[in-house]
Amino acid sequence: MSVTVNAKIELMGRWQPDSRGRLQEAALALYSERGFDQTTAAQIAARAGLTERTFFRHFADKREVLFGGSALLQERIVAGVAGAPDADGPLDAVSRGLDAAAAMLGPFRRDLSRQRQAVIAANPELRERELAKLDDYAEAVAAALRQRGVSDPQATLAAEAGMTVLRVAIQRWASEGDERDLATIMRDSVAELRAVATSS
Amino acid sequence: MSVTVNAKIELMGRWQPDSRGRLQEAALALYSERGFDQTTAAQIAARAGLTERTFFRHFADKREVLFGGSALLQERIVAGVAGAPDADGPLDAVSRGLDAAAAMLGPFRRDLSRQRQAVIAANPELRERELAKLDDYAEAVAAALRQRGVSDPQATLAAEAGMTVLRVAIQRWASEGDERDLATIMRDSVAELRAVATSS
Repeated sequence: MSVTVNAKIELMGRWQPDSRGRLQEAALALYSERGFDQTTAAQIAARAGLTERTFFRHFADKREVLFGGSALLQERIVAGVAGAPDADGPLDAVSRGLDAAAAMLGPFRRDLSRQRQAVIAANPELRERELAKLDDYAEAVAAALRQRGVSDPQATLAAEAGMTVLRVAIQRWASEGDERDLATIMRDSVAELRAVATSS
Repeated sequence: MSVTVNAKIELMGRWQPDSRGRLQEAALALYSERGFDQTTAAQIAARAGLTERTFFRHFADKREVLFGGSALLQERIVAGVAGAPDADGPLDAVSRGLDAAAAMLGPFRRDLSRQRQAVIAANPELRERELAKLDDYAEAVAAALRQRGVSDPQATLAAEAGMTVLRVAIQRWASEGDERDLATIMRDSVAELRAVATSS
């Protein structure tokens, strides 16, 4: 039930930006124009034509605008890994998690994703936060692999390599000039990782 | 010339702890006992039987005790990659960088390395800093691979996968119960990464 409602809200958000979407767009525009540190929640709300109170109903702080979806993304990735067929090897199971990530992130706008990455790359503190999130995902994926009977160091190596693919694929997807969809880029990147690892 | 002098100082440090070595040991003991945030430079100096002034002659701050060697380590890894034979594929070239890392870190005491990791794992800010350092290494290694004619995403994937191996191998080496030397663990971990990537 709640999943259906969320799906509806997300779907609406794509076509007719709700308050949350307008705040995200305004925040990314301001972070890009004047820098993350120089932007306040009040300015974001004003830019979106909303009140500061509305901002704080959607986000705990201005960092949350950039990282708000990460708990849900981790959940989806882990569910993808855990739900992989028993016959899947570690990296195949991780690929299922990456498919799930692509399904969640793919519908977002590339230009916003590009802005987000530029903002994070420009701020050491945000970059460290982003890396820590990716490391959290990797730890959760490694735990899911161990549950499937994969031992260490294979579980950790497959999980970390998978999160490298996630990051590289999202960067490529958001960059201009690569018109493939995220799921395709993700799968191609796994194949490229395999090629790198097998070449002598 | 300066390399020889540094090598001599490092060698002495291993057998007859100099001020720097004593400060590192004292710092890690205090970070472990009372936590990083609760430890001051003055306490570290006192524990080492030295003055606070001596502490600041060796380290800019107490975080530097944990991350002081990282610029040199990055330099050695990159030199290993850059110096790999032309015939080496991307991951083989990265392995040469990991050999160089093992040669630099291998002589250090495992128990101090274990303490360092526990301190970092216990403190989110230090963990983020550690991840950022590893990401810096990966970016530098990717640049060295591009110089060798490796294109992207292969260069990034090989570099990031290599730094995952570095981290996993150091963790295993520092953990109790694994008596292999760091260079061996590093090479075995590369082989395990290859096995993970090739298994379907």
